Parts: sequence; structure tokens; C-alpha cells
Amino acid sequence: MRLVTLTTDFGTQDGYVAAMKGVILARAPGTTIVDVTHEVARADVAAAAFAIAQAAHCFPAGTIHVVVVDPGVGGLRHGVVVDGGAGQTFVGPDNGVFALAAPAPRGAWQITARRFVREPISATFHGRDVFAPAAAALAAGARASSAGPRVELTGRLGGASGDAPGRVIHVDRFGNLVTDLRADTAGLRGVRIGRRVVPWARTYGDVKPGGLLAYVGSAGTIEIAVRDGSAAERLAAGRGARVTPLVAI
Amino acid sequence: MRLVTLTTDFGTQDGYVAAMKGVILARAPGTTIVDVTHEVARADVAAAAFAIAQAAHCFPAGTIHVVVVDPGVGGLRHGVVVDGGAGQTFVGPDNGVFALAAPAPRGAWQITARRFVREPISATFHGRDVFAPAAAALAAGARASSAGPRVELTGRLGGASGDAPGRVIHVDRFGNLVTDLRADTAGLRGVRIGRRVVPWARTYGDVKPGGLLAYVGSAGTIEIAVRDGSAAERLAAGRGARVTPLVAI
Amino acid sequence: MRLVTLTTDFGTQDGYVAAMKGVILARAPGTTIVDVTHEVARADVAAAAFAIAQAAHCFPAGTIHVVVVDPGVGGLRHGVVVDGGAGQTFVGPDNGVFALAAPAPRGAWQITARRFVREPISATFHGRDVFAPAAAALAAGARASSAGPRVELTGRLGGASGDAPGRVIHVDRFGNLVTDLRADTAGLRGVRIGRRVVPWARTYGDVKPGGLLAYVGSAGTIEIAVRDGSAAERLAAGRGARVTPLVAI
Repeated sequence: MRLVTLTTDFGTQDGYVAAMKGVILARAPGTTIVDVTHEVARADVAAAAFAIAQAAHCFPAGTIHVVVVDPGVGGLRHGVVVDGGAGQTFVGPDNGVFALAAPAPRGAWQITARRFVREPISATFHGRDVFAPAAAALAAGARASSAGPRVELTGRLGGASGDAPGRVIHVDRFGNLVTDLRADTAGLRGVRIGRRVVPWARTYGDVKPGGLLAYVGSAGTIEIAVRDGSAAERLAAGRGARVTPLVAI
Repeated sequence: MRLVTLTTDFGTQDGYVAAMKGVILARAPGTTIVDVTHEVARADVAAAAFAIAQAAHCFPAGTIHVVVVDPGVGGLRHGVVVDGGAGQTFVGPDNGVFALAAPAPRGAWQITARRFVREPISATFHGRDVFAPAAAALAAGARASSAGPRVELTGRLGGASGDAPGRVIHVDRFGNLVTDLRADTAGLRGVRIGRRVVPWARTYGDVKPGGLLAYVGSAGTIEIAVRDGSAAERLAAGRGARVTPLVAI
Repeated sequence: MRLVTLTTDFGTQDGYVAAMKGVILARAPGTTIVDVTHEVARADVAAAAFAIAQAAHCFPAGTIHVVVVDPGVGGLRHGVVVDGGAGQTFVGPDNGVFALAAPAPRGAWQITARRFVREPISATFHGRDVFAPAAAALAAGARASSAGPRVELTGRLGGASGDAPGRVIHVDRFGNLVTDLRADTAGLRGVRIGRRVVPWARTYGDVKPGGLLAYVGSAGTIEIAVRDGSAAERLAAGRGARVTPLVAI
């Protein structure tokens, strides 16, 4: 029994996600399907890239991760199957959405084989007609390389991706600010964000309720939080904000 | 292993949906349960009818679709099992909620058999006490006709159902306007909605960001969208709005 | 195949819940996972306690219920496995969250065994690193008593738990007011809340649209509702409001 995860910006009020699940279960009976999230903001490829990167490494080898945040549906970007290494396979549009979860892919193949699609392919719902059937083909045992011709991924995450690390890359439900800083925490005494210095702590319980702290978050990078509060609100900071580690002398 | 889908207006903040799933899994172990949506607006039977119609046809033969949007719970409407044809079975109240997914049912049976209910039946939570156990009985192999006496469905969708097609029947998360127009698209040059003429396109990529377009949507009917925007907001239009196809001369 | 349910305050927009599911499915392949809710308000232990109590009794013996609403993560409270009786096992922090679903536990064990955790254990995400792996160990066949040393639960629900019954303990999505009154309904003619007397009825259909009613809800306690409306709005009442049963003379 294979595992398939789904990450989309479809929301949960319409039947779109269920349509994808129906297609997968019709073509690969017995597949276990896990939702990562369907609450990605519309067309926010960077947020989807973060969500799947946060979850994918917890899944066993052999898992197939479908990500459909696809502002270019019906346009020119390819639909692809990506071998991310460590037994993780990704399915979705070539628009950079796999850049964080599979930074060094072992190969990518354009989805063209008839077994990997559901015909007739609509112009607007590739989640149902391309990406779900491709995941089902893989779940049923097809190799990634049988999806179609091998291609180089061309999609890139926009924004600060070329910059050096040191930015907030995600604000979670709790208002925690997740950064891309994989700092060596030895000697770290805090971080600077805007004009504020946030002191270092191991966990929430090390500060008083309402206190600010910086710590190594669950993604393995530095996060900034307010115990029992929202760092995003307190600091009026969001995605893209600059964060600088402060080392003790 | 049988498939059961769930469509309700229960939301996801309470334990109501999980209670239904517990009942199904206790009575029919190994069943795969798929959520269509639980975000139907309270008592909005027409929206539930649309959601299940959009998803049901993607599921394999043998799937059981439970729909519980039931303003009349505890009242006089029957709980029914409906053979929708093509191997799709529906379970829920007889209030018109199956009218779009199963427009020509092959039969309907009132739920009265003890094996199809969970006693004592509460007056307010038939999802848990009637519809979930009925689905479980079917998933465990019972025939639809063993649910109880055969009945004629009397529930009807309200509103414009008697009118000729040409209305918005759903506004999705993206603000796309889904119509009931199954137009022959040959020669179509657009649609009129209110005082606006919306030009025809194959897909979003055919217009500029912010541009309006009409196209064949994933449900197979005409939809109106704004690329990277909301047609509902742009046109100040919602469910029930009149839409007229425009044919080239 | 074992069943695991999940109740958290993580929301569904981040990858946190999926990370937990990945850990469970990697360590206990074939487990069926059911979401109770992830929309518990942040750190609202009482709401989580209510949600799992509402759903747990519908699941078959052998089900493992994971509840992660944990303001003290990284602090001093224990992570525990609780034998709730009737074949229901609970996993989560010892902060009172099981008080309603398992009021008379048969035993509790602190989670310390290596097989029950995922190392290195982060300081902030015990859902992924402690509670999910503990559930997986149980789903894979480990006994609750092998989690670690036997302990007495010390967590208590705050607020009115010491008071006599007679309060609203939950407001559901529909604005229904769920009380903790397990009244003997014989002779009951209604309830008093604030200055209003709400008449007794069997179900919504017994009153006119817009009418107030009190009735035995699906949790087996007295609830107050407005047919096709919100009792919480109408009565301007929420959790903690006093409710008094009125008996006919």
C-alpha cells in the first residue's frame, strides 16, 4: 500500500480535493492519502514549497507528494514527476514548488504518458486530470521515468531565493516567524529583527508568558515566537523580514 | 475495501464528523473514508448538492456517498439510500440533496432496518445515528434494498430548478462563477452577465492577469473567472445571477 | 489495522499535522488515521477535552486517541499514555485534556521509552517527536505500560470544574450551547439562562424557524438552540454561562 500526500491552494469548501482523491483511489485502490494542507494562499508557490518541505521528510520512503499550486495552469509550464532522493517522489507543476523539499533532485520527467493522465484533459483542472492520475500511476507501481521525457527543472522560487539566508520565510498559525537561518547555535545569544533584539532560549517555558524568544524550531531553523502570543503581531513582521543572528563575544 | 465519502455542513471545529467516522469504522472496519467537504454553509442544500455532484463521478463504482445537510433533522423527511446508477450509492435525507449527482436514480429506499441505524436514535444527530450506520451497513455488504421499504424521492432543490439553464449555481473559493450552461461551445464568443460581456477563452493563460474570461470549467459547464482575481467581486455577482451565451454570427 | 485519532490546535494551514501523520505511518504502516479536529483555539485545553470526549466513545475498542493541545510544551508536564477503559487509549500531555473522555482512567504511564519517541526530541514540537511516535508504538502493538513508569495524572481542567453542573461548556459551529447538565428530563419544562426561560422540545422541528428550544443534545446533555439560527448570538451567551433546569410543578 502506497502513501500519497496532497498540498494545494484549493481550500476545503469545494469538491476539488475530493475529485483528486476519487481519481487516485479509482486508479490505485488501497492507496493511503494524507492531506498536508489545502489552505495555501491562492497561487502562493513559496508557501506551498515551505509546507511540503516541512512535512515530506517525516514520511517513509516510497511516499508520493503531490503539490498543486499552479498559477500557470493551462499555460506553458510542464507537469513533472521529480525524484527527490531518499525515496521521496514529487508530482506537480515545474514552477519551483519543490525547491525546498527536493533541493537536489535526482531526476525529473515531464508528464506525457497516457497512463499518467486522465483524458480528456481539461484546460483548468490539472490537479484532477494530470497530477492525481500521475500519482496514481506511481502508486500503482509505475516508475517515475515512465512518465515521459527527462527534463531539467526550470521553475524557481521568486523573491529572496538568491539572497543569503537571514529572512523570515513563513509565518505559522501561531504567529511564529520561521527563518531560513540554520545557525550554529553555539555561542548564539539572540537575533536582531528590525530594531529589536530577541534573546535566545531553548523553549517557550524558558521565558515568561508574553515574552519574546528565539530558538531552534521544528524545521531545524531559527524561529522567533512570543510565549502565548504572536510574534508576527508583536514585531509587526512578516515573510521577507530580515533576521540577523547575534553571537556572544 | 469499500469507499465512503462524507459531505456535511458540520464544519471541522467540533467532533461531529469524527463521531460519524468512528461509527463507520466500528461497524465496517477497513473502510476508506474521504471528506468531500464539511464547509457547506449551514442548511444550504443546493451547495451540498453541487459539491457532491462535482466529486462523485470521479470515484470508482461501489463508492457510497453520505450527504448530511439536513435542516429538517428530527422532522418528517425520510432518511434514504439511493441507487444513483453507475455503481454510485447515496445516503442522506430526502430533501433534494442528490438531485444533481443522481438526477435519474434507479431506486430509493427509506432507512428503517435495525442494521442500518444506531440505537437509540437521537432527535438531532442523524449523521451519527442513521446516515453513518447506514453507510457502514452498505460498506459491509448490505444491499441498498435491504435498508427498508422502497420509496419515491420527494425532496426537490429550491430556487431556479424549474427554470431554463442560464444561471450561476456556485461560487468557488477562487471567486469563479460556475454556471449550469452546458453550451455547445462551437461558435461561442462569450457570455453576457448583467451588462458585461465576458469574452471566450480556453484557459486562464489566454488572457492577461486581471482579465475576465468565460470557458468550459472542470464540471463541464461554462464558468466565468478573472485571471489571478475574483469574478464574483469584479462583477458583484453570486449564485442565481443570469448568464446568457453569445454566439458569433 | 489500528485506528489513531488526532485532536490538536495546530490548524490546517501549516504542515504540522501532516508531519505527525508521516511519523505514525512510517512507524506503523497501515494505520488508519482520523482527524477529530485541528481547529481547537490555541492552548484551549477545555475545548480539546470536550471535542475528544464527544467523539471517542463512537470509535471501536482498540482505538488510540492523540490529543496535542499543550501550552506547556518543553516545560515540566509529563507526556503520558492513558488507559481510559473500554479499549480506548489516550496519548498526550498530562494537563487535564483527557478529563472528560477518560474520567476514571485505569492507569497512566509517562512516555520515556526510546521506542515511544523520535530522537532527537525537539523542544517545541512534541506532537511530532513524542506523541505521534508513542501512538505509532501502540498501533504497532506495544502495551501502554511499556511507555515508561506508571504515574498519577496531575493535570486538571481549569475553570468551573469544581463547581456543580449547570454551565455552558461548549458553543458549537451552529451557535448551539452545550451544557454539562445530564438532567433527568422527566417533568422538565425548560431551562433558565440569564433572564430568559427556554422551553423544552424534543427536536428542532418542534418549534418554528427562529424559535428557541432546550433539548437533549447528541452528547447526552441539555443543549440550547435556535432553529435555523444561533443561540449564542440570540442570548449573547458563551462558555461558562449559568443554566438552570426548570421542572414542572
